[in-house]
Formats: sequence, structure tokens, C-alpha cells
Amino acid sequence: MASSLLHCSDKLPFMDVETILHMKEGLDESSYAQNSSLQKRGMDTLKSLIVNSATDVYISQMPERFTVADLGCSSGPNALCLVEDIIGGVGKVCCRSSQPPPEFSVLLNDLPTNDFNTIFFSLPEFTHRLKSAAKSDEWGRPMVFLSGVPGSFYGRLFPRTSVHFICSCSSLHWLSQVPPGLFDEAKAPINKGKMYISSTSPPAVSVAYRRQFQRDFSLFLKSRAAEVFPGGRMVLAMLGRQSDECVDRRTTFLWELLSESFAALVAQGLVEQDKVDAYNVPFYAPSLQEMEVEVRLEGSFSLDYVQTYEINLSSSGDAKEDGRTVSMAIRAIQESMLSHHFGPDIVDALFHKYTQLVTESMEREEVKSVQIGVVLTRL
Amino acid sequence: MASSLLHCSDKLPFMDVETILHMKEGLDESSYAQNSSLQKRGMDTLKSLIVNSATDVYISQMPERFTVADLGCSSGPNALCLVEDIIGGVGKVCCRSSQPPPEFSVLLNDLPTNDFNTIFFSLPEFTHRLKSAAKSDEWGRPMVFLSGVPGSFYGRLFPRTSVHFICSCSSLHWLSQVPPGLFDEAKAPINKGKMYISSTSPPAVSVAYRRQFQRDFSLFLKSRAAEVFPGGRMVLAMLGRQSDECVDRRTTFLWELLSESFAALVAQGLVEQDKVDAYNVPFYAPSLQEMEVEVRLEGSFSLDYVQTYEINLSSSGDAKEDGRTVSMAIRAIQESMLSHHFGPDIVDALFHKYTQLVTESMEREEVKSVQIGVVLTRL
Repeated sequence: MASSLLHCSDKLPFMDVETILHMKEGLDESSYAQNSSLQKRGMDTLKSLIVNSATDVYISQMPERFTVADLGCSSGPNALCLVEDIIGGVGKVCCRSSQPPPEFSVLLNDLPTNDFNTIFFSLPEFTHRLKSAAKSDEWGRPMVFLSGVPGSFYGRLFPRTSVHFICSCSSLHWLSQVPPGLFDEAKAPINKGKMYISSTSPPAVSVAYRRQFQRDFSLFLKSRAAEVFPGGRMVLAMLGRQSDECVDRRTTFLWELLSESFAALVAQGLVEQDKVDAYNVPFYAPSLQEMEVEVRLEGSFSLDYVQTYEINLSSSGDAKEDGRTVSMAIRAIQESMLSHHFGPDIVDALFHKYTQLVTESMEREEVKSVQIGVVLTRL
Repeated sequence: MASSLLHCSDKLPFMDVETILHMKEGLDESSYAQNSSLQKRGMDTLKSLIVNSATDVYISQMPERFTVADLGCSSGPNALCLVEDIIGGVGKVCCRSSQPPPEFSVLLNDLPTNDFNTIFFSLPEFTHRLKSAAKSDEWGRPMVFLSGVPGSFYGRLFPRTSVHFICSCSSLHWLSQVPPGLFDEAKAPINKGKMYISSTSPPAVSVAYRRQFQRDFSLFLKSRAAEVFPGGRMVLAMLGRQSDECVDRRTTFLWELLSESFAALVAQGLVEQDKVDAYNVPFYAPSLQEMEVEVRLEGSFSLDYVQTYEINLSSSGDAKEDGRTVSMAIRAIQESMLSHHFGPDIVDALFHKYTQLVTESMEREEVKSVQIGVVLTRL
């Protein structure tokens, strides 16, 4: 359980990310569970890298209890996917070498506001799937001990030297807070009309975002360094950039369209311009180099493998369908923060406009996002 | 994560306790969180026994990581009470001996249908209270790693040899299933008109309930024996009996009134008699001797301390107020099972009648419940 890293000034339009940000709970049409197919595709791309890294750690250490953590597990079907694959991978390794499988300790982490109940409700199915997999692959049914660990990964989550393998997909692009440098000394917003780094943002905006990323990612590494066994590994995947320039169209594009949607709502008198000016997302898509620098500076992990890859958001070829998919995904992610800042009443109108803008863009061009994946080994 | 222990026959009116039984979720008027003051009083009675047992284990082992589990934590304010007291107790011991406190691993267990979200939402307050307590008692702020462990305690929950101290209050009187022996070979109910052991129940009813308790409690002990460090301890408290007779008015009284309430609903044509005949609660209030026998038979724990005590349910002296408190408490506990068996529509009418009957009883006499508490040490 991490302590809050957030500090609040009376004057700033403060948003306590740890108590507000959460993927849309439940299982209904607008839930994250129903709108996380894009994140699933990111996970699928890295699946073999994750499973191979985990089994390598298992083979090198052969512990009686193998402890695996998923950081930022969210809720819905994605939450248990990766751990299921890891357990299956290790199970097959044990079967091939005629070893009994270890006891698995599975730690699912997300912020305390995450919908853990929905994950836990799905446990009977998860147990059933594991049992079937073990049967068909002829490895012994494993003992799996699963727990939910609420807290921010920008701080300690687990006891000292207690985890063998960590994965985190589509989570580390979320910062611990909106960068304080996005407001000047008089507490006035400096990134007016925009909610993330934009080509028209003043240079101080990129600086503020980059500094927050450096502080957060460095704290993330320091916290994990205390928790991971020597020789243990982490596979981290997140939205990122292929260039060193902070204004990278592929990472800023969807935020630009959200800013445009807000501009339309302001023009209709539905939202005040001041509110829009003061809203920024606690998000940063780093470059590989920026990550490498922090890993080197922190010093506890070696960087063994890096990969950048693209996810095509125009996957079906039908701009209307793809536009809706993307818009619903962004809504499931952003709704908690938008409702907090603007009130819940504007959300429907906002995403009506947003779906329209995303669809129009997709009619003109293919839209892709860039992801980066790294494998780190604890020295 | 325990596998389901429940077996289903097509013909029996089967209730999968593991997927149905849960305390009423959320924080509203009818929630368990708002209606668990009776359980809190039970916990308060045992508080010093629990804290002293935990600190004794800590002192005898002085581990760098002290792992504590609460089994059947439920949700609401009670869920974090005991662990908070334990952490404070160990903190003070460390302060007196000028030792740094250990890292605490806190495992909160309940069935997967428990409302873990509400516990996790309250974590920031919990952290704040711990911080204040550490400050005022001048012991270092402890590192506390909290996790939710969904699963039935009638099966394995934690990895082998991983827990130092376990407590469980007001949970072990719940069985893993409605005893199958409550239906005859033709699948007809044998405990007609009643939902627990009653003075008018045939002897086979007590036998069926006792057998289910023996099977469940023995499996509980076997599971914990695998998980608890040698020298580790458990403090278990539950509703129980002072006599060896299964028909003990203090434990059957509130169930009798619930059966009476159903009889009234049947008379009004609101519920079918057949449905009532087939409903039994997965509950058993054991005697101390029955527990002792199972502990001796299982063989991994020594029984170091036993205590029986009474909780006065007529605490305020105002029968109307006390009647409502008891009725709301039973509703928060029973609603999930009643709704499953009878449908949700009858619940309001049922508890309207039940409140009236409980209040009338309390006007006539003081109503008390019997609890038993035991301390077990892992050999």
C-alpha cells in the first residue's frame, strides 16, 4: 500500500490522481471491461516476451513459491490474462523437466479506486480455465494464491525482496499527478486550450511533463528495486514515442482531438474556457532513451531488451466502427478524471463530439499508436 | 484462492455458498458496514487477547516481515480494526525495545463476493490513522503492505509456511455449504418449517449440521497448518454454545424468530411453504468441546486458551432500538442468501415481521448471544 505522493496547493485546480483515476468500473456497455480491446492487443503483442521472461526467471531460480505481480492490472477480462499465460508457461516448463510446479503467488495491483470486486467475481472461471489448461497440457494442477494489492506503484507495494517477476502493460504512461509546472507562479495555467503537450504548447509544458515522468519513473524503479529478488525481472510496456521530440503526432493525436471536442463544447456554451485551460492529463509517453536514462541513473536494474511497436487503431478498416472503439476506450479511461473536473453532465456530449472527430480522422488516414516494451533484470 | 468445496445435485435446492453468501455491500443504510456493531462488540471483547497473542508471536520470532491475516474480514469499518490494533501493539513493543518495527504484510481474506472495493476505498484513512498512532506513540512509521485475498477459508488461501498470525472473528460459524444430510434420499427436506436446528427438528438435523461442522473445521485446520509458521498463532472467535446439546436456545433463538417470520408470510400467501421447508442456513454454533476434538484430531495445533463469553443484544435497554439493530444486522448477513432462494421481493416484508418479533422478545427478556474464542499455536 503506497502512501500518497501528491501535494495540494489551495490555489491549484488539484486532482488527486490516486483517489480519482480509475478505469470505468463494472461490466456494462461503457465499462473498461467492455472497452479494453486496444489494451488487450498491446498485451497480446508482448505476450510471448512476458511469458518467456517469466519462465527464464523461474528456471534460473526454481523457487518453491514463485511470486508474480501485475502492476496496473485494471479490472475486466485483461486483468487475469497475463498471469494465466505465465502460470501456463511455467507449468509446461515443469512438465517437460518432470518437476512439480511451484506454488504461485499472484499479486494484482492497481489504485485503491480500481474495481477489484469485478476481478474477484471472475475467479471461479479463472480457476476453471487453469484446471482445464493443466489437464490438457498434462502438468499437475498448480496451487495459485491470488491477491489484490491496492496502491500506487509510485511507491512501495510489496515487502522487501519478495517478488520474482513483474509485468505492467498500458499503465506506466499514467503519472502520479498532473505536473505542477503546468501552472505559473500566479497559479495560472500555461497550457491553455490543450490537455497534453501540443505543437502550440509553450516549451515549459514539455519540460514540466518530462520532469514529472523522470521523478515518477525513478521512484517506480527505486520501489521495485527493494521488492524484486536479485535475478528477478520486469517487463514494462506503455505508450511511448519513437522520436526524441516531445511533440510526436502519434502520441498527441488523440489528446488533440479531445481538446478540439472541448473547444466545440465551449463554443456551444456548455463548458467554460477557464475550466478547459486548467485541465491537463496526468499522462506522459516517454521515448526509449528517456527510459534508459532513468534506468541507468537508478542503477538497480540492467536493461536487457527494448522494443517499440505500433498498434493500428484502424484495425477493422471501418472508420465508423474503429472510431467508436477508440472513443469508448478513451472514455472508459478518462471518465473518472473528466467527471471530477467538469462534472458528469458534459461527458455524453463530449464523447459524442469526440467519436465524430476520431471517425473523421480515421476516414482520412490510418491511426496508429506507438508502444514501447522493455525487459529489466534486478542486479 | 481456494477451490470450491461444494457439490451440486440436480435435485437438491442447491446454494453455492461461496458464490452467494456475502455481507450486504456498500455503505448505505442496509449495508453490513452500517449494521455490524454487534460483530464489533464481539471483536472488542477479544481485542486484547488478539493483540497480545500477535505481539507474543512477534517477540518470539522477531521476523523482518511480520505476516498477519484476518479471515472473513467482511467490508466496512470492522475490516481494518483488528489489523490496526495488531500493528499498533507490535509497534509499541518495538519502541520499548528500541527496535525498528518490521515490515507488515496484512492479508485480508473473505469470499470472492465480498465487497473488497469498499475496504480499499478506505485505505487512505487507514494509512492516516496508522501514521498518527505511530507519531503519538513515538514508534517509527511502519511499512504496511495490505492485500485482499478472495477465497473460502475452507481450503488453502496462502502459500506454504508464510503467515505468522491469523485472526478470525464472527466468521467460522458459517459452513461451506448447507449440510446435504438435511434432505432425505428422495431429496425431500427433513427440517420442515425451520431453517436451523430447532427443538422440533428430527435428530438427523443436528447430526447433519454437526457432521458438516466437523468436515469444515477439520479442513480449515489442515489448510492453516500448511500456511502458518511453526510457533505461529491463530485466535478464532465465533458464535458457539455453552452446552453440549445442539438445541441451545441462545444460538437457535434468532433463527427460530426468522422461521416464525416466514410462517407469517406463508399465512399471508406471500411465500410458498415448500420454499420455506427447503431453506436452511449454512451455519453452526459449535461447543468448545466439539472444537477441541477437531483440533486434537487434526494434530498440527495446540489449544492454548479457551474462553466463552456473552454478548448482550439488549444493550441499550430500549427494546425497539435493540430489536431494530439486531434485525438489520441479521438482514445485512442473510439478505444475499434469502434473495437467492426466495427472490428479492419478500425481503422487506420478511424483515418488517422479523423486527417486530425480535422487538417483542426483547420487551419480555434480555437477549444474549454466546461466543467462543480460542487461541491455537502451530506446533
